[in-house]
Amino acid sequence: MKIQPVSELKTLERSVEQNTEEQRKAVLEILQNVKLEGDKALLNYTEKFDGVSQSSLEVTKEEIDEAVASLDQEMIDIISEAAANIREYHEKQKRQSWFFTREDGTMLGQKVTPLDSVGVYVPGGTAAYPSSVLMGVIPAAVAGVEEIILVSPPGKDGKLPAAVLAAASIAGVKRMFKLGGAQAIGALAYGTETVPKTDKIVGPGNIFVALAKREVFGVCDIDMIAGPSEIAVLADETGNAKYIAADLLSQAEHDPRSAAFLVTTSKDLAEKVAAEVESQLNDLPRKEIAAQAVRDYGAIYIVDSLAEGAEVINRIAPEHLEIMTKDPMSLLGKIKHAGAIFLGEYSSEPVGDYFAGSNHVLPTSGTARFSSPLNVDDFTKKSSVIRYSEQAMKENGRKISAFARLEGLEAHARAVDYRLEDK
Amino acid sequence: MKIQPVSELKTLERSVEQNTEEQRKAVLEILQNVKLEGDKALLNYTEKFDGVSQSSLEVTKEEIDEAVASLDQEMIDIISEAAANIREYHEKQKRQSWFFTREDGTMLGQKVTPLDSVGVYVPGGTAAYPSSVLMGVIPAAVAGVEEIILVSPPGKDGKLPAAVLAAASIAGVKRMFKLGGAQAIGALAYGTETVPKTDKIVGPGNIFVALAKREVFGVCDIDMIAGPSEIAVLADETGNAKYIAADLLSQAEHDPRSAAFLVTTSKDLAEKVAAEVESQLNDLPRKEIAAQAVRDYGAIYIVDSLAEGAEVINRIAPEHLEIMTKDPMSLLGKIKHAGAIFLGEYSSEPVGDYFAGSNHVLPTSGTARFSSPLNVDDFTKKSSVIRYSEQAMKENGRKISAFARLEGLEAHARAVDYRLEDK
Repeated sequence: MKIQPVSELKTLERSVEQNTEEQRKAVLEILQNVKLEGDKALLNYTEKFDGVSQSSLEVTKEEIDEAVASLDQEMIDIISEAAANIREYHEKQKRQSWFFTREDGTMLGQKVTPLDSVGVYVPGGTAAYPSSVLMGVIPAAVAGVEEIILVSPPGKDGKLPAAVLAAASIAGVKRMFKLGGAQAIGALAYGTETVPKTDKIVGPGNIFVALAKREVFGVCDIDMIAGPSEIAVLADETGNAKYIAADLLSQAEHDPRSAAFLVTTSKDLAEKVAAEVESQLNDLPRKEIAAQAVRDYGAIYIVDSLAEGAEVINRIAPEHLEIMTKDPMSLLGKIKHAGAIFLGEYSSEPVGDYFAGSNHVLPTSGTARFSSPLNVDDFTKKSSVIRYSEQAMKENGRKISAFARLEGLEAHARAVDYRLEDK
Repeated sequence: MKIQPVSELKTLERSVEQNTEEQRKAVLEILQNVKLEGDKALLNYTEKFDGVSQSSLEVTKEEIDEAVASLDQEMIDIISEAAANIREYHEKQKRQSWFFTREDGTMLGQKVTPLDSVGVYVPGGTAAYPSSVLMGVIPAAVAGVEEIILVSPPGKDGKLPAAVLAAASIAGVKRMFKLGGAQAIGALAYGTETVPKTDKIVGPGNIFVALAKREVFGVCDIDMIAGPSEIAVLADETGNAKYIAADLLSQAEHDPRSAAFLVTTSKDLAEKVAAEVESQLNDLPRKEIAAQAVRDYGAIYIVDSLAEGAEVINRIAPEHLEIMTKDPMSLLGKIKHAGAIFLGEYSSEPVGDYFAGSNHVLPTSGTARFSSPLNVDDFTKKSSVIRYSEQAMKENGRKISAFARLEGLEAHARAVDYRLEDK
């Protein structure tokens, strides 16, 4: 990793919008066909893109039981304990409906209601990500969503990975489909003979999945357009170079476009971390991916103070931030933009990825400026509640109709005037 | 309005995605030019689309003072009182950062932070909508957003309406620009020499504005893609036909594509409301718009019970719902999908549009299934906070690295293992 001046700070805008017209056309065609032909289109695309010829898309109870039985009991216990921690954290996010009253008899409030149904997309391919299943499903279950549908592309054997099915079962998913890509997004947005139409689609995917989510936004809701991951570490001279290097690499191994930053007040630490990264890279199984990420998107910045460091972090707006200083909590008030903030040397990013309880679906590519981790609010919606009183109408009716007439909306004004006339 | 069987219930999906490829191309070109040429592109498009040749886009302090002075003091007082009510309601939506602790020394929490900057789009054209200014700006101000930018297309005279400027000033906007259409969205998303780049764009607009918001989603955040408005009234035999007809028409006068529904257990009320609508339509200034809306998108449904009525309402998922029954509060638990719920005969929709305090930017076209009224949460974001303890690491570290290895992410596992080895 190179030590660079802050003036060369890289920005993180790596959005899906560039040079994707070709893929967008393909996605529009897929969505259109799923809308028109339903299951038939889904089966065709699954054969074409996943190389699997199926007669049925839904995962059976037998497949789930078989998957759970095939895993070590110890691993099942670990996944179950992680699920319990994630449930505990997300329970704290639940919100109550509320109201307040005015002396004139008016009552105003806000009603919180879970969504009826959501679709959780779990990426497939060569790896299995049971942790992503927990992180997508549990907040929805905690919110009270009744119908949680999981979709994930099948492997060449026509199956979903055992760990994914086990995690889905532990998290409480009732229905799962072997279905990926833009066709899965179309199925969840429009519904088919077997896949239910859902109100919201969450979860990361490849460029086709991201573009398809963008296109169906409005027909249903979506969570966010996820990009490559990133981590930033803010450290002073007390930082442990070995831990910091390991944490930077844990992010770098995800994707050659992952970004890893160290921002530090210590030149000595900067040099030690640079050396540790080189040394730890050597025998990593995903060495090539991590090395490319560190080379292309990694950087170490030396700052004059931790306050300046916090400013640099806010400009990066990282998905993950680790604060490894003598007194990490004292910097929390200076951090405005970060998806998840890890405090102190035992708060390694993988702790949050798997086990602590907070969500690992986080805003990437600088979108922490305006986006939040996946959370229970994402699976509820609010309705305003207005109970206006006779007294309030008498006292304020003329003002309301005057305001409506100022905007040239006479029917609005009259709706109020009729109530006043009858008094 | 026609009385129709429930089996013919119309759905409200009137999204922006149909047949808009032509407009989308135009929007992409505008966005690209704004990105490349900044203010120069803005001035050119404003001349082309708004017919106004300007040297500067920003509204001056003199223009604002002049606007405020040109309005009646009584009107200023009404707008100010509405603003105070809106502020009171939205203050209740503010959320605290929170944390909880575990016995092993772990602390987990969620930090709530306002966005740095937002853009509020206010539609222009023939009418002025100061109420939309209040509804877009006040929740952002309550959230603590420091930079609130207002944009609105200028009239032929090169000015923004006095009422819009006055409302913006009352709501606390510091900077306003005479700028509309897709070019305004591009300016707020990318920033130009004079218009600051913002983190989120809110507010309704025409098809070009809606498509531009869709395209920049991800570069910044957006609120929602607003469609035509709708109202549904759920009433029993105690409903007042005159009030109900007036409220249906107050929605219908907005747009020829506005929808207005009555769902009632009373055949007698259904007939009276149908007659009242015809009679009240006669002398409305916006008669043609309202009549077309009622004819094309209006319907009265007779149901057997209020419980069935609530089900019909949930299928419609109306932007506005009025419950005009003997005991409206008792039905609130049955309503799952509605943007704003008005209870009882004095809670006429215009009361909420202008004055009560709840927001009038509501989910339209059935999106109340998954969307909420504009609210303070829309102008804040959350960060997870994780402080894992030494004890927690000792007790759980092996489980975390086992989980990481199950997913094939060795660098994640090692980041944890290094901490365990050092113990």
